[in-house]
Amino acid sequence: MNAAELAGSERLASQLRFLLEIDRLKTVLRQNPVGDRSRRENSAEHSWHLALLALVLAEHSAEPIEIAKVVQMVLVHDIVEVDAGDVFVYDDAARESKAEAELRAAERIFGLLPPDQGDAMRALWDEFERGDTPEARFAHALDRLQPLMLNHATGGEPWQRHGIAATRVRERNALIEAGAPALWPLVATLIDDAVERGFLAE
Amino acid sequence: MNAAELAGSERLASQLRFLLEIDRLKTVLRQNPVGDRSRRENSAEHSWHLALLALVLAEHSAEPIEIAKVVQMVLVHDIVEVDAGDVFVYDDAARESKAEAELRAAERIFGLLPPDQGDAMRALWDEFERGDTPEARFAHALDRLQPLMLNHATGGEPWQRHGIAATRVRERNALIEAGAPALWPLVATLIDDAVERGFLAE
Repeated sequence: MNAAELAGSERLASQLRFLLEIDRLKTVLRQNPVGDRSRRENSAEHSWHLALLALVLAEHSAEPIEIAKVVQMVLVHDIVEVDAGDVFVYDDAARESKAEAELRAAERIFGLLPPDQGDAMRALWDEFERGDTPEARFAHALDRLQPLMLNHATGGEPWQRHGIAATRVRERNALIEAGAPALWPLVATLIDDAVERGFLAE
Repeated sequence: MNAAELAGSERLASQLRFLLEIDRLKTVLRQNPVGDRSRRENSAEHSWHLALLALVLAEHSAEPIEIAKVVQMVLVHDIVEVDAGDVFVYDDAARESKAEAELRAAERIFGLLPPDQGDAMRALWDEFERGDTPEARFAHALDRLQPLMLNHATGGEPWQRHGIAATRVRERNALIEAGAPALWPLVATLIDDAVERGFLAE
């Protein structure tokens, strides 16, 4: 029997089922490596790193934000990948077809929680997906900035492997300018530096 | 040049130095495995999982808590391990000698941030270490519960490898009863179940 089956109440059992299920996010691999290049990053540690970016970079948001909400949003934003997997930000075909799979994943995984908690977390995920609030816009900016920082720090291997050029990197990272315009000069400089150092094609 | 050296201001440079440095927490390994037993868990993904435990299990805290503070606390509680490494909760000798190393790590790593942010994060880490507030007591309870859940779910390999018996597991996890007494019956049941199934010695 697992921990959920050993819980004394149905409510605690639901909470444990969810918490055991999302452990699988630790085995969903992303395209970018971790900083020491030893392996690819997984979506759980990516989410932790994003939460720290939110806490440290909050002052660079385009609009006033509730920081605690951004933190919660980035902590849950990738949980659907437990079922739907991670899709490379430059893989347009996969990005289109993933929407349906992610919706089903959200239904199933947030549905493991007691309804009040599942509804609240689902609402937070929906808000991130819609990207139509100051918190969601800032969260999207961070979600782009973090892999860009790691790719820049580690020689841009995913860009080379997938044949991604600087123009597409600038285009795809425009969300950073929308959510955190104060960070755009840094992003532009990182991209130019990667081109100069020869690990990103112009 | 790294991203910090390319930042337009000293303040942003400090923020990026910190955010690049803590990436190393992804390579600090803990004793317990991840849920599919494929490998040991690292401290970054552990911190993410704890933050989700905080969000979902908050109602089981012994005392009223500010949830956002608990979330921030568990997100930063292990950052010192970037320098000091992870110490197994049952390794008493190492636990005693680690205190000094962790203090030096806190000085150095939180010291990378702009002073206002470094001081705030350091204060949160100090509070967790002292364990003398409702938020810190609940965070400690979660920090024990999470590996216990994973060890129970995966057959208790770290207990066997280190020859840990049920009495010590009950003793060392008493912090769960202190911070979240409503979760103690679950913990007692998990330990009894592990004994019955033969992967934890009585």
